[in-house]
Amino acid sequence: MTTEPIRAVYRVMCPESAIGRRAEEIAREQTTELPRGAVVRDGLEEEVLGRVARIRPVGRDLFDVDVDLPGTTQDGSATQLVNVLFGNSSMQADTSLHDVRLPGWLVGRFAGPRHGIAGLRALTGVQAGALSCTALKPQGLATDELASLAGLFARAGIDVIKDDHGLSDQEAAPFAARVAACRAAVARAAAGSGREALYVPNVSGSPAELARRTALAREAGCRAVMVAPSLVGLPAFDELVRAHPDLAVVAHPSFAGSVRIAPRALLGRLYRLLGADAVIFPHAGGRFGTWTEDACLELAERLRAPWLGLAPALPVPAGGMEVERAGELRALYGDDVMLLVGGSLYKAGDDLEARARAFAASVRPRD
Amino acid sequence: MTTEPIRAVYRVMCPESAIGRRAEEIAREQTTELPRGAVVRDGLEEEVLGRVARIRPVGRDLFDVDVDLPGTTQDGSATQLVNVLFGNSSMQADTSLHDVRLPGWLVGRFAGPRHGIAGLRALTGVQAGALSCTALKPQGLATDELASLAGLFARAGIDVIKDDHGLSDQEAAPFAARVAACRAAVARAAAGSGREALYVPNVSGSPAELARRTALAREAGCRAVMVAPSLVGLPAFDELVRAHPDLAVVAHPSFAGSVRIAPRALLGRLYRLLGADAVIFPHAGGRFGTWTEDACLELAERLRAPWLGLAPALPVPAGGMEVERAGELRALYGDDVMLLVGGSLYKAGDDLEARARAFAASVRPRD
Repeated sequence: MTTEPIRAVYRVMCPESAIGRRAEEIAREQTTELPRGAVVRDGLEEEVLGRVARIRPVGRDLFDVDVDLPGTTQDGSATQLVNVLFGNSSMQADTSLHDVRLPGWLVGRFAGPRHGIAGLRALTGVQAGALSCTALKPQGLATDELASLAGLFARAGIDVIKDDHGLSDQEAAPFAARVAACRAAVARAAAGSGREALYVPNVSGSPAELARRTALAREAGCRAVMVAPSLVGLPAFDELVRAHPDLAVVAHPSFAGSVRIAPRALLGRLYRLLGADAVIFPHAGGRFGTWTEDACLELAERLRAPWLGLAPALPVPAGGMEVERAGELRALYGDDVMLLVGGSLYKAGDDLEARARAFAASVRPRD
Repeated sequence: MTTEPIRAVYRVMCPESAIGRRAEEIAREQTTELPRGAVVRDGLEEEVLGRVARIRPVGRDLFDVDVDLPGTTQDGSATQLVNVLFGNSSMQADTSLHDVRLPGWLVGRFAGPRHGIAGLRALTGVQAGALSCTALKPQGLATDELASLAGLFARAGIDVIKDDHGLSDQEAAPFAARVAACRAAVARAAAGSGREALYVPNVSGSPAELARRTALAREAGCRAVMVAPSLVGLPAFDELVRAHPDLAVVAHPSFAGSVRIAPRALLGRLYRLLGADAVIFPHAGGRFGTWTEDACLELAERLRAPWLGLAPALPVPAGGMEVERAGELRALYGDDVMLLVGGSLYKAGDDLEARARAFAASVRPRD
């Protein structure tokens, strides 16, 4: 096979004297999984064995190892892609998946964002400036309480109102009734302004349940859903996105456990490849202290920049952002961004609607 | 709600002066996800907020934090269980999920092993001694080559012959033809001995594809399948196990990325909870150097010991085991174990069948 290989970049902690051997072990582990010298058929290794393309030091006892993984290992599924990128090696503490470079033929087998930035702007009617987003929370609230919050945020002019990722199908607010009520509340609020906020329910559960909840969201008139790809499983995410080309999809990073796979690879490449139209991630300086501003900007760039013909996805910095940081975030990310503020609004108590209104206004174009 | 909570144990790297605050932050992050002081409704926090039950030092700047997560957060799905156990916190580099303690009411909502050790002994006809297992590999071999290997291993007396987890539905050996051919080869080999090896195909892909491949495996007469729960996604694994109560399920650790979730919790608890009848894991001293023998033994104990009424699951130490270590492994684990040896057999080249026969014999009861 002469198809272009998949390039994986592994970051490996290892003494310099051993990195050559270690690199080859990783290339074997991720493909033939046979020790050197175990020859099952002559010529087979040339077809399927991963090949170490480059080793470069990036710190003390720290190396980036580029491995080319043959296209013959693939069957077009997300499971097999992830399996070959970081299956067994995920169990080796010295190794993380630092980056992936995908060939065009492989990208064509996955959905990619079908709406992306342009689609989300069309759905919200926000053609200029950034987008504002908040979350309905916490879990434990009853359906009418959540719907009431949804109406309040919609009246305040928030562009996108999403479920907290903790809202699933609990007794306190079962999915079907909750989603219908929240969507209706948002629609009622629109009667005044003429512009309806985009309500984005969180869909989760087993694959069958995911399908059921997505169907319910459609019935309620929702035009977008939120999914945590790493929580439902990348293959289930892949299937959901393909089954609903007309729904915009916001990706949530729950369970993304990003330390072993760099966010630039998992959120910046795989989530976009599989069709996330917007990707939520923890911005620097919030509750997730380990992400630097540079890492966040690089992730945003990967979501928005031209990449193998896929539509750009909307970056959604979040994770403990204060309303007061809206200006700073817009200066940093530019206009093609959706700012997600949750807890910082809820702290306002009785002034919630006024604070939400100020937040919604803060993302509009400046004169 | 007075139901018993879920107990999560987080291992947190943090100075002693800050651990109290950090523990509370984790409890909030995993449940209400609201900052302290954001009161949406009086009394709500008592129903849904995680509660720090204990903090104990386990090393320098290292603490185990027990958090009780209320049952009200659950909806019976694997997504919501994992979401509340380690959703957003997975993105915090100082925190790993070290252990889980599940209440009986929750365990009752999941499948658990339906065959377990007793079922696998019945399926293989191995009532005494340990079980032997090897893998068909590498990917890239054609269907007839893999079937020929399957026949060879069956004739050698290996109890369980599984697909390598890298075999999916590639062009070189498409799933349907490959599985039928391997099963047939194993059946032919049994004509001589009267005892048929258990052939276990690897099923993967999107949820729909997973269902299709499992159906094909059934059609081919397979009575067990291998699945990588973390690769297909825990919710898809959950659904698959429930849909096929008569199939035994061997769990493979690909993509389990076990550094951020301790194997004792992920493989030892969640995999068993969701219904793995046997669990493959890297034994100490193989290619996955970071697992200690103590950690492996503890994992085996968790798979086999009585736990909330679930059937015991079969531990399968693997990951670069040499045939020569069979005696050592049996002494360590006892008889309720399946030894999985792959590459060490393949290195034998033309002596493959003889070496496989020696391996198969090594697990039988000693006189």
